[in-house]
Amino acid sequence: MSSPPHCEMPLPVTPMELYEKVALQGGTVRLLKSNKAPKNVVNLWNSLPQEEIDAAVKELLALKMDYKTLTGQEYKVGIPPTNSTPANNNSLATAEDDGDIVDPWTVQTTNAKGVDYDKLIVRFGSSKIDQELINRMEQVTGQKAHRFFRRGIFFSHRDMHQILDAYEMKKSFYLYTGRGPSSEAMHMGHLIPFIFTKWLQDVFDVPLVIQLTDDEKYLWKDITLEQAYYYAVENAKDIIACGFDINKTFIFSDLDYMGQSPGFYQNVVKIQKHVTFNQVKGIFGFGDSDCIGKISFPAIQAAPSFSTSFPHIFNGQKDIQCLIPCAIDQDPYFRMTRDVAPRIGYPKPALLHSVFFPALQGAQTKMSASDSNSSIFLTDTPKQIKTKINKHAFSGGKDTIEEHQQFGGNCEVDVSYMYLTFFLEDDEKLEKIRQDYSSGKLLTGELKKILIETLQPIIAEHQLRRKQVTNETVKQFMTPRKLVFDF
Amino acid sequence: MSSPPHCEMPLPVTPMELYEKVALQGGTVRLLKSNKAPKNVVNLWNSLPQEEIDAAVKELLALKMDYKTLTGQEYKVGIPPTNSTPANNNSLATAEDDGDIVDPWTVQTTNAKGVDYDKLIVRFGSSKIDQELINRMEQVTGQKAHRFFRRGIFFSHRDMHQILDAYEMKKSFYLYTGRGPSSEAMHMGHLIPFIFTKWLQDVFDVPLVIQLTDDEKYLWKDITLEQAYYYAVENAKDIIACGFDINKTFIFSDLDYMGQSPGFYQNVVKIQKHVTFNQVKGIFGFGDSDCIGKISFPAIQAAPSFSTSFPHIFNGQKDIQCLIPCAIDQDPYFRMTRDVAPRIGYPKPALLHSVFFPALQGAQTKMSASDSNSSIFLTDTPKQIKTKINKHAFSGGKDTIEEHQQFGGNCEVDVSYMYLTFFLEDDEKLEKIRQDYSSGKLLTGELKKILIETLQPIIAEHQLRRKQVTNETVKQFMTPRKLVFDF
Repeated sequence: MSSPPHCEMPLPVTPMELYEKVALQGGTVRLLKSNKAPKNVVNLWNSLPQEEIDAAVKELLALKMDYKTLTGQEYKVGIPPTNSTPANNNSLATAEDDGDIVDPWTVQTTNAKGVDYDKLIVRFGSSKIDQELINRMEQVTGQKAHRFFRRGIFFSHRDMHQILDAYEMKKSFYLYTGRGPSSEAMHMGHLIPFIFTKWLQDVFDVPLVIQLTDDEKYLWKDITLEQAYYYAVENAKDIIACGFDINKTFIFSDLDYMGQSPGFYQNVVKIQKHVTFNQVKGIFGFGDSDCIGKISFPAIQAAPSFSTSFPHIFNGQKDIQCLIPCAIDQDPYFRMTRDVAPRIGYPKPALLHSVFFPALQGAQTKMSASDSNSSIFLTDTPKQIKTKINKHAFSGGKDTIEEHQQFGGNCEVDVSYMYLTFFLEDDEKLEKIRQDYSSGKLLTGELKKILIETLQPIIAEHQLRRKQVTNETVKQFMTPRKLVFDF
Repeated sequence: MSSPPHCEMPLPVTPMELYEKVALQGGTVRLLKSNKAPKNVVNLWNSLPQEEIDAAVKELLALKMDYKTLTGQEYKVGIPPTNSTPANNNSLATAEDDGDIVDPWTVQTTNAKGVDYDKLIVRFGSSKIDQELINRMEQVTGQKAHRFFRRGIFFSHRDMHQILDAYEMKKSFYLYTGRGPSSEAMHMGHLIPFIFTKWLQDVFDVPLVIQLTDDEKYLWKDITLEQAYYYAVENAKDIIACGFDINKTFIFSDLDYMGQSPGFYQNVVKIQKHVTFNQVKGIFGFGDSDCIGKISFPAIQAAPSFSTSFPHIFNGQKDIQCLIPCAIDQDPYFRMTRDVAPRIGYPKPALLHSVFFPALQGAQTKMSASDSNSSIFLTDTPKQIKTKINKHAFSGGKDTIEEHQQFGGNCEVDVSYMYLTFFLEDDEKLEKIRQDYSSGKLLTGELKKILIETLQPIIAEHQLRRKQVTNETVKQFMTPRKLVFDF
């Protein structure tokens, strides 16, 4: 068949060609945005009209959509297309307006400030952690709210008031968090839920279970069971180094613990009976060509939300409520869990959601354990920390000292400043830094120096504590046993 | 829109109306067939032309197809349509030519002689157990072949020659069989794989594992986990009463054992990584509205085919081949298992397939544990056995003594005769019964009397042995432990 002479047929395009086009356009958008003042600042110097940036972003989004249509995969920076068949990816978990993509496997935004979390709260149907809740927590516990609460790092919740109601009535609950051990190397972002969970455990004095989903990593990655389990044990050492109380904490690998407690498997089967393929397709975007392990996995992450999964801790009691601190991308698992809970006679778990820890290159993505320059690793030396921050931390400062002093830096996109909000405890000091950087008084190099000097001792102390974690200690934490609480 | 005046619109029909139409037509076909001589007998007396029967069967099959289209369910005798949504039931497991339906949940044929097993061998791609294999087995083991071999009751196999090759070279293997504990009540048909497996264990002197899929029954039936587990333990008593050697046999409930051995779960995950939803859809006919527990269950029935699922027995050795005696309807699970095995570094299990044990009403269906008159239960009294056989056992005899003596009975459809092929050990006696019944010398009442007198002591002895099985004995059989074999 011949095509009409005036209508040029599009050239056939391969997934790799399209991948490269998206990458190129992504670079263009970043370049345009880096030359642009933040929205809230009077635009005196910016030679780029907003329209030009908007058009470039629009083009980028269109290319990404083409890419997804052609390959069935989300475009991911640095990850070329694979040969897998297009997935039927109509995921409800994916929040895709404005280019934000948030699900357990992808977090991506084209906005340098990061994902729009207020919109995420609306989309996911959770509640904002507002000042009222923070005040109530301080009142109930008699403790100052953690800086992650004060600074909106844990920003969203489900049923936290219920937990506090119960706590006020001396009714216990338990904490559950976890980690997917995809490699030996953990970075600073991985610490966020654990730092916060340790604080919650100290404040509320409740049992804590930590799930290492080595089975998930085996199912999703090209690694052996043995590798996945090895990563689980290595990661457990970093988790233990966060200072958890061995008498109040049970850490478990799925591959191990599934074979150690019939209660866990029995809850998995109960959940699996009450969730259809249609549901996991909707929630997680699974397709017909996904393996049955992936399809049934959500039940395994859901099961620790129910106290009967830990008979040695809760003595068979089935009504101990669970509170789950986690990054917001894990919420789809627990929306599913909360849907199933009443149907199998268990209380719904409550949740506390955190924002994502930004990559050094900017808040557009989560840090990646596979790109050593995207993150500060827990194994980095003081020198590596210094070099990485100086070289890779995306700056909200201006190109020249003169410009910076005249117009000020942009804390909203500056990664060094963002990192300080996570790790600098002193509120007043942080506020002073923000003012000085925004006004241009504090230069980018100086800001980076403050961050370097903040992180170096934190990492060094972590490394020291981790060194003290023996295999014997790991074994103790990972042995199913009664904790100090009586149920 | 109006329809053309000459084209009568079909009346709207409800699933229940269609169900009743199919049931009615099924009765018609049975009636026609019962008045017809067997194909191989010269037709002197039959007033019904074959065409009339063929037309009735054709009509029945068309109605069944309509029923399936309307309801998404297979028509099953005595089971009215439910409200579940139509399944995407394009199962490869289902062998549906000639009205034969064979998959793990449905066995049905419109032929009074039962399922056409030769066709099943072709469809399933297995091998016939021929005289050569039987001779070889007798030669290798030095034992006379079991009557189930001699009479074609175990009729099909996969890789049995491989097992014998290995056995000749003093390389061990192990036996694996199982049962889905859907109720407390087991019937005689349920004993077939266990009687045969006990014989195999005695002859080959190898370890045996017996899986009770209480998780499967929980997923498929409207029962609680506790009920499913209770049925598993009760069924274990009947299984133990078959005479298995406690030092060579491990019986396990999935709900129990999954939480007792990480090796089992780790194999489940390995299998689940290598089977897609598309594959289980093709093999088992699962649909999008099936729960994720059903979708992932096949891996749980597959896992005991690999010796690493039982580290306490096989000491971590991963190359001990498995031989699975089972009814042919379970083959889809093990076709899947054999497909996965080499991809995860394990030997493919070998199989021995049995025919189905016919219901008292005829070989069209398997016995049903839910219809007490369709089967002889292991709990039946001598009187109940007598009454059931006299009243319900489908007869291949003629309507009057005179006709019977003149034309002879039809052993091919006579259930009493079929039951004797399963339970009467003496070949010569059985052959004499066949000849006398076919010639009309032996009357139906006399044949039934022989069956009654054969089964009464078998059941009575089973009941006696079962009474001796204490909870303590069950516990011992079901405790993960080393058996007498050294690996």
